Amino acid sequence: MKSGFSMPLPDIDDIRAAASRIASHAVRTPLLESPQINDILGGRLLVKAETLQRTGSFKFRGAFNTIAQIPNNIRKNGIVAFSSGNHAQGVAAAALLHGVPAVIVMPKDAPGLKVANTIDYGAEVILYNRYTEDREAIAAGIAEKRGLSLVKPYDDPRVIAGQGTVGLEIIEQIDTPPDQVLAPCGGGGLISGTAIAIKDAAPDSCIYAVEPEEFDDTARSLKLQSRQKVGPEANSICDSLMPATPGEITFAINQRILSGGLVVSDNEVRQAMREGFLRLKLIIEPGGAVGLAAVLSGIVDCRNKITVVVCSGGNVDPSLFSEILGES
Amino acid sequence: MKSGFSMPLPDIDDIRAAASRIASHAVRTPLLESPQINDILGGRLLVKAETLQRTGSFKFRGAFNTIAQIPNNIRKNGIVAFSSGNHAQGVAAAALLHGVPAVIVMPKDAPGLKVANTIDYGAEVILYNRYTEDREAIAAGIAEKRGLSLVKPYDDPRVIAGQGTVGLEIIEQIDTPPDQVLAPCGGGGLISGTAIAIKDAAPDSCIYAVEPEEFDDTARSLKLQSRQKVGPEANSICDSLMPATPGEITFAINQRILSGGLVVSDNEVRQAMREGFLRLKLIIEPGGAVGLAAVLSGIVDCRNKITVVVCSGGNVDPSLFSEILGES
Repeated sequence: MKSGFSMPLPDIDDIRAAASRIASHAVRTPLLESPQINDILGGRLLVKAETLQRTGSFKFRGAFNTIAQIPNNIRKNGIVAFSSGNHAQGVAAAALLHGVPAVIVMPKDAPGLKVANTIDYGAEVILYNRYTEDREAIAAGIAEKRGLSLVKPYDDPRVIAGQGTVGLEIIEQIDTPPDQVLAPCGGGGLISGTAIAIKDAAPDSCIYAVEPEEFDDTARSLKLQSRQKVGPEANSICDSLMPATPGEITFAINQRILSGGLVVSDNEVRQAMREGFLRLKLIIEPGGAVGLAAVLSGIVDCRNKITVVVCSGGNVDPSLFSEILGES
Repeated sequence: MKSGFSMPLPDIDDIRAAASRIASHAVRTPLLESPQINDILGGRLLVKAETLQRTGSFKFRGAFNTIAQIPNNIRKNGIVAFSSGNHAQGVAAAALLHGVPAVIVMPKDAPGLKVANTIDYGAEVILYNRYTEDREAIAAGIAEKRGLSLVKPYDDPRVIAGQGTVGLEIIEQIDTPPDQVLAPCGGGGLISGTAIAIKDAAPDSCIYAVEPEEFDDTARSLKLQSRQKVGPEANSICDSLMPATPGEITFAINQRILSGGLVVSDNEVRQAMREGFLRLKLIIEPGGAVGLAAVLSGIVDCRNKITVVVCSGGNVDPSLFSEILGES
């Protein structure tokens, strides 16, 4: 890890170490391509299908990499995490693989599928009200009371290094360095880790964080060079991308190496989910589709370029997916 | 190729040659696993996701391998094929990659998505009535009149060898030889090619063809040791598995090396499609889901075994997929 920042920032060696740790448990997700989409874009689009990752999102990578590094005598007491759903499932599954209990603090309005799966992976789920209660305080209280280790959703070098294995795999799977890489951004764990890995191998690649338009905190923070917050009334179909402000560590990385932030509307996300069904045969949840939405809506120019988009998760309730398929 | 049969049967070397031919155009589809499904089954299930193949089904493999072997001076006149939809798309896309025209004879009641995609890949589509007209005669007429090369949907050693690359990849991707392998069966191209490749590396593996219950011609043919036909009133949600009788070459192979045929109901297929959505994040079309249906419905015992299922295609109309997601 490099210093020069108040906290240690993960580097490519941390990501390589994470890749070794998760190798026998995580899916090496495919990099897919649709000749039809390429024709429409006038360039080459490669889609990293993290929808097919264990637990249905990239979050398993960071969760497993973090839990694996907690000393056994502490880890055995158990893990606690707060999450709207994908980190929840990632932590629950990774804790189960380590044979330790997990307590997950989830909002009452999280998608039903995410809550059900988290319970299914053996975790104890504690629901809270996202408008009146503080999830970090609840988790901290439980951690102290029960002696559990907190696994943060993004602002931890071990989590970032784990998510960075997405970027490492992209570089290994692609034959030519990409011109640009886009990934969804909530707290920034996926995009910061992925950016470190891509930039190490392809320093000229441009990396963009993509957010829902009302949760544009990273886009604005990158422009203003300081961490911005979204307002309390911000709303989006992208339940997995709702942190109100960038992480401290993730932003320190993103500020140094990202080319910028892009935003998409909920309608562009819905359209991308339909195209994902038709052209890529992928089930992409709203938050997982923002990168694809940025590409397909023309916000980013893909002509004569090699563009990689991370589709980060596929945990969407059947009823919402059906509703979106029925629109056009 | 081995002889001893009136036509040459493809062997493992033909499949290896096919793998080289298609390597830079076909997707090496992932072998996916759901710990949740494993828990339910009490064994290990690996899913070969051919839904993610170029054109949305395994058919691209055989089509490309066949077209690549037609001498250029003949191929340049163009290709003709008949198909309910997946072979149609595979041939259209493979012809396009070879820069030659394609004419595809499709039933009027083929899924809209399959017809639209076939046209999208640049093919000329000729629709026929599946109840009153003979598609083979129509295709033969066009082939003769225009000097086109016919690419059969399954009963051709080049097509079988191409589909066999699915089996070759399974063997390369798996760490332990599978106890049993299941694949959907229409005319038998996929299952026969896959079986050759699996049996070459893992002679003790049991290979099963899976069919919709009213299109059980291969299951009955294997039992009776001769090619049987289904009745004219046979019906199924599995539009891609509706050939009325096994192919001559495919059956000659299947008769020698398959362990048997299994059948599933339309309701079991629908249930498997929902589980595919929830647990595997795969969009599986009805005909592509029969193998998964056989496993999940308990028709085949998976306890303490390693079972591989090929999910062969994902070309399903959004309206039907939504309808099925809404059931439970």
